[in-house]
Amino acid sequence: MTNTKDNRRDFLKKSSLSALPFLFPVMGKDSLNADKSKTSTQFVKGNKPVVNFVLDGLHFSPGEYLHKLQEISKTKAIEPDFYGAGGATKQLEEQFAQLTGKEKAIYLPSGTMANQLAIKLLNGNSTKVMVPENSHIYRDEADAAQSVHGERLMPVGEGKPYYDLKDLQSTIAYSDKNEVFKSGLGTVVIENPVRRADGAYVPLEVIKNVSKYCQDHDYKMHLDGARIHIASAFSNVSVAEYASYFDTVYISLYKYLNAAGGAILCGDAALIDQIPHLIKIYGGTMYQSWTNTAMALHYFEDIDSKWEKVAKVAQQLIADLNKIEGITITSIQNGSNIFDLVLSSKVDLKALANNLYSEHGIWLGRATDKGIVKFTVNESLLTRDYNDILSAWKKAMDQVIK
Amino acid sequence: MTNTKDNRRDFLKKSSLSALPFLFPVMGKDSLNADKSKTSTQFVKGNKPVVNFVLDGLHFSPGEYLHKLQEISKTKAIEPDFYGAGGATKQLEEQFAQLTGKEKAIYLPSGTMANQLAIKLLNGNSTKVMVPENSHIYRDEADAAQSVHGERLMPVGEGKPYYDLKDLQSTIAYSDKNEVFKSGLGTVVIENPVRRADGAYVPLEVIKNVSKYCQDHDYKMHLDGARIHIASAFSNVSVAEYASYFDTVYISLYKYLNAAGGAILCGDAALIDQIPHLIKIYGGTMYQSWTNTAMALHYFEDIDSKWEKVAKVAQQLIADLNKIEGITITSIQNGSNIFDLVLSSKVDLKALANNLYSEHGIWLGRATDKGIVKFTVNESLLTRDYNDILSAWKKAMDQVIK
Amino acid sequence: MTNTKDNRRDFLKKSSLSALPFLFPVMGKDSLNADKSKTSTQFVKGNKPVVNFVLDGLHFSPGEYLHKLQEISKTKAIEPDFYGAGGATKQLEEQFAQLTGKEKAIYLPSGTMANQLAIKLLNGNSTKVMVPENSHIYRDEADAAQSVHGERLMPVGEGKPYYDLKDLQSTIAYSDKNEVFKSGLGTVVIENPVRRADGAYVPLEVIKNVSKYCQDHDYKMHLDGARIHIASAFSNVSVAEYASYFDTVYISLYKYLNAAGGAILCGDAALIDQIPHLIKIYGGTMYQSWTNTAMALHYFEDIDSKWEKVAKVAQQLIADLNKIEGITITSIQNGSNIFDLVLSSKVDLKALANNLYSEHGIWLGRATDKGIVKFTVNESLLTRDYNDILSAWKKAMDQVIK
Amino acid sequence: MTNTKDNRRDFLKKSSLSALPFLFPVMGKDSLNADKSKTSTQFVKGNKPVVNFVLDGLHFSPGEYLHKLQEISKTKAIEPDFYGAGGATKQLEEQFAQLTGKEKAIYLPSGTMANQLAIKLLNGNSTKVMVPENSHIYRDEADAAQSVHGERLMPVGEGKPYYDLKDLQSTIAYSDKNEVFKSGLGTVVIENPVRRADGAYVPLEVIKNVSKYCQDHDYKMHLDGARIHIASAFSNVSVAEYASYFDTVYISLYKYLNAAGGAILCGDAALIDQIPHLIKIYGGTMYQSWTNTAMALHYFEDIDSKWEKVAKVAQQLIADLNKIEGITITSIQNGSNIFDLVLSSKVDLKALANNLYSEHGIWLGRATDKGIVKFTVNESLLTRDYNDILSAWKKAMDQVIK
Repeated sequence: MTNTKDNRRDFLKKSSLSALPFLFPVMGKDSLNADKSKTSTQFVKGNKPVVNFVLDGLHFSPGEYLHKLQEISKTKAIEPDFYGAGGATKQLEEQFAQLTGKEKAIYLPSGTMANQLAIKLLNGNSTKVMVPENSHIYRDEADAAQSVHGERLMPVGEGKPYYDLKDLQSTIAYSDKNEVFKSGLGTVVIENPVRRADGAYVPLEVIKNVSKYCQDHDYKMHLDGARIHIASAFSNVSVAEYASYFDTVYISLYKYLNAAGGAILCGDAALIDQIPHLIKIYGGTMYQSWTNTAMALHYFEDIDSKWEKVAKVAQQLIADLNKIEGITITSIQNGSNIFDLVLSSKVDLKALANNLYSEHGIWLGRATDKGIVKFTVNESLLTRDYNDILSAWKKAMDQVIK
Repeated sequence: MTNTKDNRRDFLKKSSLSALPFLFPVMGKDSLNADKSKTSTQFVKGNKPVVNFVLDGLHFSPGEYLHKLQEISKTKAIEPDFYGAGGATKQLEEQFAQLTGKEKAIYLPSGTMANQLAIKLLNGNSTKVMVPENSHIYRDEADAAQSVHGERLMPVGEGKPYYDLKDLQSTIAYSDKNEVFKSGLGTVVIENPVRRADGAYVPLEVIKNVSKYCQDHDYKMHLDGARIHIASAFSNVSVAEYASYFDTVYISLYKYLNAAGGAILCGDAALIDQIPHLIKIYGGTMYQSWTNTAMALHYFEDIDSKWEKVAKVAQQLIADLNKIEGITITSIQNGSNIFDLVLSSKVDLKALANNLYSEHGIWLGRATDKGIVKFTVNESLLTRDYNDILSAWKKAMDQVIK
Repeated sequence: MTNTKDNRRDFLKKSSLSALPFLFPVMGKDSLNADKSKTSTQFVKGNKPVVNFVLDGLHFSPGEYLHKLQEISKTKAIEPDFYGAGGATKQLEEQFAQLTGKEKAIYLPSGTMANQLAIKLLNGNSTKVMVPENSHIYRDEADAAQSVHGERLMPVGEGKPYYDLKDLQSTIAYSDKNEVFKSGLGTVVIENPVRRADGAYVPLEVIKNVSKYCQDHDYKMHLDGARIHIASAFSNVSVAEYASYFDTVYISLYKYLNAAGGAILCGDAALIDQIPHLIKIYGGTMYQSWTNTAMALHYFEDIDSKWEKVAKVAQQLIADLNKIEGITITSIQNGSNIFDLVLSSKVDLKALANNLYSEHGIWLGRATDKGIVKFTVNESLLTRDYNDILSAWKKAMDQVIK
Repeated sequence: MTNTKDNRRDFLKKSSLSALPFLFPVMGKDSLNADKSKTSTQFVKGNKPVVNFVLDGLHFSPGEYLHKLQEISKTKAIEPDFYGAGGATKQLEEQFAQLTGKEKAIYLPSGTMANQLAIKLLNGNSTKVMVPENSHIYRDEADAAQSVHGERLMPVGEGKPYYDLKDLQSTIAYSDKNEVFKSGLGTVVIENPVRRADGAYVPLEVIKNVSKYCQDHDYKMHLDGARIHIASAFSNVSVAEYASYFDTVYISLYKYLNAAGGAILCGDAALIDQIPHLIKIYGGTMYQSWTNTAMALHYFEDIDSKWEKVAKVAQQLIADLNKIEGITITSIQNGSNIFDLVLSSKVDLKALANNLYSEHGIWLGRATDKGIVKFTVNESLLTRDYNDILSAWKKAMDQVIK
């Protein structure tokens, strides 16, 4: 068995977080700014919140996290939950059920558990599950599907950002062909947006076609929508519409809702009502979870309008940055909040990043092997004045361009 | 499958928490004292911390919990962890390894997961596990051992607070007798102290005998020591000595360390190093856990000296309360922090409890069917002046005795 | 893990077959009578078939088995099956469906697989299964229920030949009491007749009561009827009536149908149609099984009338033997084909058994610790003239009585 | 779940047996020749044994099978086994251990169980198993690896008869790349010869390279050698040499040893000694198996020399047939006993097959979509005079050529 400690080190290398070591240890923002955790509720640089072009969201330090939760609890006392029931956790579940248009929603400790239990219940006696080849379920859940839940994952759309109906039909045909004693196919999974494809979203038309086909063939559908909020923001398709094509939908609490962990699964009451028992037997029933759910509940309120703003501001900023000599930022196809930034040969990335951070409280990530910086926009963009951000870039570029 | 929501309601009825509804909704302490969460870090009644004779410990409300964590982070910034690695979580693991004298310790989301994964690894290819008949593993883990991990639990010592070597030998002999094709026995479990026996601890002699026998027969041993700290405090056997008779030891973070959840498992490095991968595949790998581990780390520091004090103060208090007419408090055999309180027929329990709470900020639980109040001592006893507590009881008894 | 080779040796010691080593190696009858396998289709002694009071049935040697199958195939060509489908196997399945009054029946390689798969399907999402404490499922299936199928077996009626409704209710109440997070009960099992109780059958009234209770509580019921034919013969309750109280019924092919192995499971079509796939994935799908099913099919034809005869002849024989000085044969309560034979102190069992075998081709088993010979009647009783058998006993007793 | 009954029908369509319906129902040879089962031990046509160019071997009808077993038992009494231990089964196991050069061998009811249990034990705590994409394990074992044993099969060498080291390395590299939390790779499987590639054998050099690589990386190796005898016969590599590169080897008893079912697994004693317990819990422990093992034991004796002869005679026959106008028979690369026969446009296959069968007792299979008849040689070739067979072909071709 591979040692997970190594996996984690590996994770840093492989994830987008690898961008951070440029300037400071991962997640150790506090250490850079020792007095901040005591005096402010947001990471600041010269009294200004830091704008990061690296992460999914704000990624609070513990000090910031506690401050934010206290701020929340001052407005209205946080209701504690109890072994997953009641309180802020229940409130959050109700919000998510409404958002996705499903009968019920439930909190789980991790996205892996949410994905795996959804598939387990949807698949019933069937064994096969069609999953995107570059999905979290296929690549990043440590063979849980096979080793714990007895499912056979069949990868679809190898090498593509997302698969379409033809890819799915071709994989199903391959699976059927020549197999003598065979186990059935029960569930088809889509991940949207696709983390391994720089957050590209799956076109609605593709989802509709796949959904129609699955209904005709009586296959269940699960959406790994860990980051569905940003797919929605950049595709102008509501979360409810996306959800309507699926039996179950998983959404992460620590990607865009700033919680320290946790996941939500939405679906029919008959399915969701089976989840608490499964969480218990798989060992995920915790005493209290309000430390995560109260935070998510707070950020849930205005997430859609906020990301609408992020998308608009980002569009303007990218247009303006592209006017600066030496900067080229392009969209990827069906892109959401990640763009490709390429610097001209006159600009040294490291110098730029250093300048942006130390002079202006702006973080920029590392480049890929091909010299592309994955320029990521998030709600930190809204924490500073637009012109202040733009002028910071201009000044920094002036300083470092040769 | 039984619906877990119902199980939870059931839990309230069955657990010692059933004592609370006397005065206020479970865990909803904040609602009684609306201004408190904003102004104080401890539950208070007339500016005095509440002393409870009901719970394992302080059981913070969310407001209190956040205040306490902020207090902690002001002394020294809390280090965040990352998917279970590093930060406060790592620090806590190191502390527990040292406390138990084991090579390594690891944080898990729940005691159920800690117990189940320990048994799974210790048992190897064997199927049978000997467990106390009245243990959490046998009665309160929803058949996880059988349904998820493929183990067969064999109950030992039915109807007893704890089993002794003879009971164990007799169950093993029964299991061996006449069984034709049989699967082997791999692991023997002890729970200490025993929650279902009002916190009675298992005599060291019994543990030594069982341990010797298991070593001779090459059976592995696991300790469910969720509340081991109080066994230690009341039996004067160190946690390290208890741990020395076992291959693995589980200790809860939310019983006596005031965290909102979480568990620690200690053992050989070779075993503990396999746990992170298992946590991942069973779905328990959370993004961050410092909200639990930083709290536990804080209370870990002085837990032994504190419980030494609690034990001493409790002894004195019980002696003094027993001098009051109408009150009889007795120890149970090998008892830890739970005593039997019986009121004379002249005293109405409900009236007493109401008076103690409303006038003095002291909580008392409900009585069992047999009229016994499970009088539970904990660190809240140290938050007020001894004489103040004693005089409160005297005054309350004066008021309610007929 | 316990080594199964040892288990097998153990099996000989523990099973009723332990009676055989008196006179010759277990199952090695051929070696005693080297020319027989070539010239006759039945084991003989001085041209007479051997009558055994030891085994379930005839227990052919390979030579006899082949001769019998050829005899069968001469009357009508045996139809081969193909991976479990068609041929003699299908014919046998149809016969069993008719016998038990169930929609469908299916052949499986072993009783363990039949029992386990029935429970697995009946139990659905539930975990708990109520089983007789002294049953094959609880004691002799090597923890397959727990380790392979994730079921929790709850033993009922410890120390009793069979449990009644009160025992069942009491175990269910125990299971419900105080358990917090619990997994549901899905299936209730009865074994009839009870191998570990010398073949005693379960009174119809008990079955009816349990069945009514289970229907009221929506529990499924499985009958381990490995030897149901003899329960039927001695209780005068038809197999169809017994079967009517259960959802699924397993019957062995090598106990009373003389096959070299195999089992039949009967039930609703919806359940039985799921079995072939399960047999395949658990590794029990064999290329051809007609060597077992054609034999069982042959003996199936007249099994009921034959055992009616065996029961009658046995009754007469026991009455007559009881008239011989030194012999006392008594029925056990609800007994089927096993009786208790006790010799007076004037008779040496070993001498008697030797004489009966060498002079008369009659086998008698060993005594238990308490001096009781488990006197077992079977169809070998019908292979010789009644008076010949009786007079053999008289002569042998004359010879050995002191 | 897919219904297995349908799978079976499907099997007939998909397997090489689809060739048979030309002339008579699959496996119903007896019905064509009603008097034969009574009078002869071999299928005959005009007193001559039928030579088939369709099947793995002789494929006895039940009548023939019984006759053959009786013939065997006349030479030396067949020793019965008992729940898998002793007798002919033990004798066969010893022979196979010797043949493969492994410490021990064990009988199992099916190849699926042999493959799955071998992988389960070899893989230990690892999850991933590398398997040929066109193997029985990957395509024909009904997802048993995933759904019963919790393994993740990774297909290697898609679209190729067999994979080579580069393919393996590339799949391992793909699996490693970018996966964050990952489960380990434990076992690498080779199937040799490859049923889905018309029996092509894997070149020894490929096996050696893969084996060396696996040893260097501490991966275990399993050989699915269901038909290894013919790989050996046509590649001139001994079974022992093939086996020496693997930890475990599975060989079928009903492909080239004419048994009605069963499989053998060979390996280290430490591994094989764990198998009986696993067979028991998965439900494959049958009362007696000598009906299969005694037959296999008989054919085991001269299998190598016999197949050496088959290979030689086949070579000669193909050379001679190729001289007949209208017939072209070619070898496939690394081919074993299956060749490609193509008829010129002047010859109607159906007419030829009819003539060969009705006039000469020779069976020929159907053609593929591309007009190729999979011309399969087997030991039936040795049951008739060579010149008789050759002249039959010549006469038949004379009759049907236009």
